[in-house]
Amino acid sequence: MTMAACEVLDHAEVIIGYKTYLDLIPTFLAGKEVISSEMMKEVERCRLALATAASGRTVALVSGGDPGIYAMAGLVYELARETGFAGKIEVIPGLAAVNSCAARLGAPLMHDFAAVSLSDLLTPWEVIEKRLTAAAMADFVTAIYNPRSKRRTDQIVRAREIFLAHRAASTPVGIVTAASRENERIAVTTLAGMLDCEIGMQSTVIIGNSQTYTWNDLIITPRGYGNKYRLQE
Amino acid sequence: MTMAACEVLDHAEVIIGYKTYLDLIPTFLAGKEVISSEMMKEVERCRLALATAASGRTVALVSGGDPGIYAMAGLVYELARETGFAGKIEVIPGLAAVNSCAARLGAPLMHDFAAVSLSDLLTPWEVIEKRLTAAAMADFVTAIYNPRSKRRTDQIVRAREIFLAHRAASTPVGIVTAASRENERIAVTTLAGMLDCEIGMQSTVIIGNSQTYTWNDLIITPRGYGNKYRLQE
Repeated sequence: MTMAACEVLDHAEVIIGYKTYLDLIPTFLAGKEVISSEMMKEVERCRLALATAASGRTVALVSGGDPGIYAMAGLVYELARETGFAGKIEVIPGLAAVNSCAARLGAPLMHDFAAVSLSDLLTPWEVIEKRLTAAAMADFVTAIYNPRSKRRTDQIVRAREIFLAHRAASTPVGIVTAASRENERIAVTTLAGMLDCEIGMQSTVIIGNSQTYTWNDLIITPRGYGNKYRLQE
Repeated sequence: MTMAACEVLDHAEVIIGYKTYLDLIPTFLAGKEVISSEMMKEVERCRLALATAASGRTVALVSGGDPGIYAMAGLVYELARETGFAGKIEVIPGLAAVNSCAARLGAPLMHDFAAVSLSDLLTPWEVIEKRLTAAAMADFVTAIYNPRSKRRTDQIVRAREIFLAHRAASTPVGIVTAASRENERIAVTTLAGMLDCEIGMQSTVIIGNSQTYTWNDLIITPRGYGNKYRLQE
């Protein structure tokens, strides 16, 4: 959590968020009006935050990770636009899965990378498959969000096939589950072996590029191409 | 800056970093041995950090943004491997340009995105061009790092051409220069107009996908495709 996020929470009059996240920041909740929504869905929660702010109060809407990466910021703006909200909205950036998972795995994101969510709830699968193919062909290090859920189990199998068509089976793959939580799990594997590892709803999968290697169970992508560049300035 | 970074700085015996970054954190330097390297190059600085740590001291190597995204973490590991460093290395994630620039622009990164650096110092230009084409074709929101320097002025022109071949000229483009610094500048423009805006060494350029729109000078990428999905759960 950033110092900027702490300051915003300190100054908020109302704190709204999913219970799981609010439980992580008990010291910030004292003396505030807290709306801990276990039942409310995302859209409802954002609407409530906007309505509360429109009534003249300072509201902090708490989200996990970085609200600006695959998260709540967009929904807040979409609803603000729809409802003609005229107040001030500020997005406080945080650590997204790409940041925290990369840090736990070593240094996989030292070169160009792509982030692709395998959730086809709001995106046609053809678009997702096109992106996976583009990322694989163009040698992007690739972070896969929402790789698997209870109902959605085939997408990660297909994603691996697409990468295997363009990248060596020995390409390093890192899987971080529940990053930065108490029960965090880390697996360093390869494209060949990745499906034998735990991949679930809380996992992020990072697939290396053609230059990525492992050292001491860490995944390292060099900053450049070819040995002659490696340790130059 | 995160609370975790503050804790690490508090516990470090030696703090090493580029002067520009150390000047931003004066309160953390009191009572520490500080090696503020204005002259030293990156590789030298990392080598010094590793050598100091190998002598048994706790060292914090300070980097701007997120050390794990296009930054120092990889170089530290590459040199640790080369020199047979046997101590403990920990990467403390931070806010990369993708995080901080996205937050300042609204919510551009609500869907799949790619990050591409236009610096061809360590990467052949053909590889960079292939990635730009892949990102443009597959409708990735795209964050462009190192878009232009004094000597490197053509790459951003070529990058824009590539995107114009696959995306509408009216596609929203955001340019953040010196993000989160006192002299931060923000421009919200389009693919058509982007070259009329200031783009320099401290800029990051974010190009929207086919669904991205602007509202009140903010850039918003919806979470899904098609109106029917827009505000659903």
